[in-house]
Amino acid sequence: MSLSSPHPANVDSAASEQALLERRARLLGPTYRAFYRSPIHLVRGSGVWLYDAQGRKYLDAYNNVASVGHCHPRVVEALSGQAATLNTHTRYLSEIILDYAERLLGTLPPRLGHAMFTCTGSEANDLAIRIAQHSTGNTGVIITDFAYHGATIATAQLSPAAVGAAGVPARHRAVAAPDTFRDGGRAAHDFARNVAAAIEDMRAQNIRPAALLLDSAFSSDGIFFPDASVMRDAADHVRKAGGIVIADEVQSGFGRLGQGMWGFANYGLAPDIVTMGKPIGDGHPMGAVIVRPQLVSSFGSNTGYFNTFGGNPVAAAVGIAVLDVIEGEGLIENARTVGAYTGELLAALQSRHGMVADVRHNGLYFGVELMAEDEATAAAKTSSVVEAMREDGVLISSCGPRGNVLKIRPPLPFARDNAEQLAEALDRALSNW
Amino acid sequence: MSLSSPHPANVDSAASEQALLERRARLLGPTYRAFYRSPIHLVRGSGVWLYDAQGRKYLDAYNNVASVGHCHPRVVEALSGQAATLNTHTRYLSEIILDYAERLLGTLPPRLGHAMFTCTGSEANDLAIRIAQHSTGNTGVIITDFAYHGATIATAQLSPAAVGAAGVPARHRAVAAPDTFRDGGRAAHDFARNVAAAIEDMRAQNIRPAALLLDSAFSSDGIFFPDASVMRDAADHVRKAGGIVIADEVQSGFGRLGQGMWGFANYGLAPDIVTMGKPIGDGHPMGAVIVRPQLVSSFGSNTGYFNTFGGNPVAAAVGIAVLDVIEGEGLIENARTVGAYTGELLAALQSRHGMVADVRHNGLYFGVELMAEDEATAAAKTSSVVEAMREDGVLISSCGPRGNVLKIRPPLPFARDNAEQLAEALDRALSNW
Repeated sequence: MSLSSPHPANVDSAASEQALLERRARLLGPTYRAFYRSPIHLVRGSGVWLYDAQGRKYLDAYNNVASVGHCHPRVVEALSGQAATLNTHTRYLSEIILDYAERLLGTLPPRLGHAMFTCTGSEANDLAIRIAQHSTGNTGVIITDFAYHGATIATAQLSPAAVGAAGVPARHRAVAAPDTFRDGGRAAHDFARNVAAAIEDMRAQNIRPAALLLDSAFSSDGIFFPDASVMRDAADHVRKAGGIVIADEVQSGFGRLGQGMWGFANYGLAPDIVTMGKPIGDGHPMGAVIVRPQLVSSFGSNTGYFNTFGGNPVAAAVGIAVLDVIEGEGLIENARTVGAYTGELLAALQSRHGMVADVRHNGLYFGVELMAEDEATAAAKTSSVVEAMREDGVLISSCGPRGNVLKIRPPLPFARDNAEQLAEALDRALSNW
Repeated sequence: MSLSSPHPANVDSAASEQALLERRARLLGPTYRAFYRSPIHLVRGSGVWLYDAQGRKYLDAYNNVASVGHCHPRVVEALSGQAATLNTHTRYLSEIILDYAERLLGTLPPRLGHAMFTCTGSEANDLAIRIAQHSTGNTGVIITDFAYHGATIATAQLSPAAVGAAGVPARHRAVAAPDTFRDGGRAAHDFARNVAAAIEDMRAQNIRPAALLLDSAFSSDGIFFPDASVMRDAADHVRKAGGIVIADEVQSGFGRLGQGMWGFANYGLAPDIVTMGKPIGDGHPMGAVIVRPQLVSSFGSNTGYFNTFGGNPVAAAVGIAVLDVIEGEGLIENARTVGAYTGELLAALQSRHGMVADVRHNGLYFGVELMAEDEATAAAKTSSVVEAMREDGVLISSCGPRGNVLKIRPPLPFARDNAEQLAEALDRALSNW
């Protein structure tokens, strides 16, 4: 599991990985980039563990999609059973989608009365924006300046992390993310004011905001958990200007932050729409848009909206199973307690390694910001730490506009000994500098 | 199975369906509309059959998603097996996605060299448009005037069937669909000329076409199979103006048309991009974009495109299973022969029922156009025929800008006796006028 014990099949494995990479480039093309200098050929997953073709075991401290654990038997059973029974669309009646909607809505504030189902988080954010524009009659959307909200044309235009600032159309506004660390947390302190200024700037160009769209953990921006009051003030500004508030819980939702099911609740926010994706089906392609009924009273009749696969009985069965597991295995409690313990271990590293400038977290979602003599060096070192961890058998990644924040986001059944393995590996990786 | 033998549980079932509808309206909201005056509460599917909560059996002559048959055991086995083993994203290497890409690309012209995977047909068309705009530098898209291409913001703007003509932005152009029936097939005859005129009209407003986007069966427009030459000429016009050709095979692909796997091949068309959805995974949420490599050489590096669930090992296993079944069970041959037989039975109805104005088909995809004294009456009668068929245990639907075309599109294992049941039920429904 460590650099000092190379696997005997390493030479063969390098050759076969090279062949796989070439075949991949030929068939899938250059859009398909792999993680790591030496990409991993995975063949099996179970709980917090992933296994490669040579039988090497990796502690997964990154993949939020398999959120209740890779290949959870309860989820697989629900998937298999329903797929063998009925899998059709929502133009016919089905009880299981209603059972699922009821369960999901039960985890949310009562004013969010309707559940709509998509197949991805991108589709969920795309639909949320569409509903926001349709219901407000406005067009502009306010996001943070290194946000990621999806891969459809409309959501990519709201994802400067992917398309760059120049890829955001003029009708939208990207405000500084509420960075709680740099400049003494000035951007976090000024966040609501910056949103107000963006609205003013829009107004000067005769644009009105349809929505404020925020990832509750500011995942791509670098992982931040600003004060509740600035978040609520920002929401107030947008509402006063005629817009609505969309909480993007695609990354932060389903118990990850350890205080409850949803990240926005930590701010005392009352969003008008909540979007969900990644962890919702433990890997099954699902997304959801939870919405105040008033916003969609005429949406369907004016747009003919329909999603062929969204909310089919198989997705509903999987969704229920995921909720069952979160509840039955106490995963929110686990995210809180093991998250706190992991946070302590990471904070201890900060005292031992000068390059660790900030450790921030909520539940099992961690941002570890690394600093060096200049930004380019910090980014290169961050990347090297991620690579060294992979060689050491622990999977993490990085994020943020400067690429200098370690992104740690393990499946929720992460245990105390998993946390120790993570911290020890990170200690070794940081010690190499 | 017929109106003359009402199910004994009908009264109870009506009450329970009413309760289900009320619960549905409360939880999912008004966007979720159900088929039929008395919506069907489905609980099981197998092959070409669907079963409701009262045990009533329906012949499915409409659902193209469960294209190799509802709950096909080979597909369910592949799904269950892979979901229990590994389900993660494409940033890691995996062989099964390459095996699937190779199989899928093997069914297509060699110049279409790369496969990219999404989770829905909407996402596939959205990505295709994004690639077209990115690679050509142009913005306009040409579609038909009652097309449907998806539910994302960008694809809905190219779906006048859902959003109306007013919902199509000014940079795009909707041309008359190549209707092979009305006015002696004039719109079909003039199709290429109409595309050329749209390009001229764009040019006058300084817009250049990024793509011609066509459903190979013109599904929403009323189901047409125009002459190959006009389709090729239309494609030539767009290419000369700097645009590319996208074949939308979300409805027509995977053997339905009985001549091969893809509808565009019937026209001798050489598309630059082919999009896939609905039948690709027999109900599993999948989509694909097959593209000429030149078009995506810089797409990924400029856009950071990534799809979290798209092309995961579970989707690949399901996709391979679907191709295995199409091949192993001779479903393309079945679509051709049973399609021809069904076509004969429907044509015989035309000679007996004056309101049947046109029967058109290719393989197992049928449009039956009904006429009456005026358009409103024809639409109402078409709707009544669909309802009567449902009461008689056969599921079909309708399409077209006037709502007067019966849309018949059964799963591919449709057998000769299924065709006879369909034709007999349609005969009864038409006899009531």
